[in-house]
Amino acid sequence: MEYTSKLVGQAVEEISKLPGIGKKSALRLVMHLLKQPKEHTELLTVSLNELRAGIKYCGTCHIISDSSDCTCKTMSVDPSIICVVEETPDVLAIRNTGQYNGMFHVLGGRISPIDGIGPDEIAISSLIKRIESSAGEVKEVVLALSGTLEGDTTAFYLTRQLEALNILVTSITRGIPVGGELEYADEVTLGRSILTRSQVKTY
Amino acid sequence: MEYTSKLVGQAVEEISKLPGIGKKSALRLVMHLLKQPKEHTELLTVSLNELRAGIKYCGTCHIISDSSDCTCKTMSVDPSIICVVEETPDVLAIRNTGQYNGMFHVLGGRISPIDGIGPDEIAISSLIKRIESSAGEVKEVVLALSGTLEGDTTAFYLTRQLEALNILVTSITRGIPVGGELEYADEVTLGRSILTRSQVKTY
Repeated sequence: MEYTSKLVGQAVEEISKLPGIGKKSALRLVMHLLKQPKEHTELLTVSLNELRAGIKYCGTCHIISDSSDCTCKTMSVDPSIICVVEETPDVLAIRNTGQYNGMFHVLGGRISPIDGIGPDEIAISSLIKRIESSAGEVKEVVLALSGTLEGDTTAFYLTRQLEALNILVTSITRGIPVGGELEYADEVTLGRSILTRSQVKTY
Repeated sequence: MEYTSKLVGQAVEEISKLPGIGKKSALRLVMHLLKQPKEHTELLTVSLNELRAGIKYCGTCHIISDSSDCTCKTMSVDPSIICVVEETPDVLAIRNTGQYNGMFHVLGGRISPIDGIGPDEIAISSLIKRIESSAGEVKEVVLALSGTLEGDTTAFYLTRQLEALNILVTSITRGIPVGGELEYADEVTLGRSILTRSQVKTY
């Protein structure tokens, strides 16, 4: 596409590099910014620059944070459980459920040989060290990884590594989503939810 | 949503102000930028700042451009037709069809009393002046406005104004999209396409 302005073309080019944003959406965003007061664009670019310059990763749990102190330790109520996730947004998603109040550990990815990501490329060894140095305080590790082949591979590898530490390793359950109809569930999910069926209790 | 980092929260806040981007998408974009080299974010923010600071509007046709010179006059082959559109992206869309080689005139919006936009808020008077000062060179005005109530209102108002200038006023046709099936067309479009039916010719 040929733009009437080089500056517009350049902005569209950069915006459309972002995932899920094509050239048309990028042009719509550019037009929106041009219609808004200058301050909107300034606030946006300042916040992006500050983000990229100021962001830190916690040395213990690898959560994205403003300081190098461990935010997950201070925020968690129960320091005996560590929930292992792939990325920081997973931490927010789990915390938003209100069903978990333990600590977290962000792997920073999942084992994926095709993409050249082995166990050493993600934060597995630091998880082992963290549990070992807790002197028995950590009793359980909850694996909350994505339900893909790579997520399962990572879960399998982690379980093997953690078994030696003599702690309980659990995983979030896979199954039919709440509100989901059986008819529309895919075969693999349905098959797994039958395999991992649990006893119905009336409390 | 409570973020682990204020900087992330601030960036998500600013990104989600853009149209069509919610908090979840904004967080995904933030995570993407954090995974990319710093230069990506810099290129993005620099291009946005340059866009907002350097952009100009042509004094004649109101197309967004890098200079105040009229790009549409130099780019058009046929200076006897002016195509009237709402925004600059419409110019790109029409030029990309390869079916039009005349000039353009960007109104910068459409008449919408609900939003407080009357005929004086959009570039109608400058269109009239432009045609009057062309000394008879402009023979036709093509209205390429959106098929909404506001677009139709604008088209009606413009036609009334242009009739006095003794030039041909045409409009892009409304109808079933090419490749579209009748079954799925909405009633209004179908109704209009029957009303404005044209003779079938075999050339």
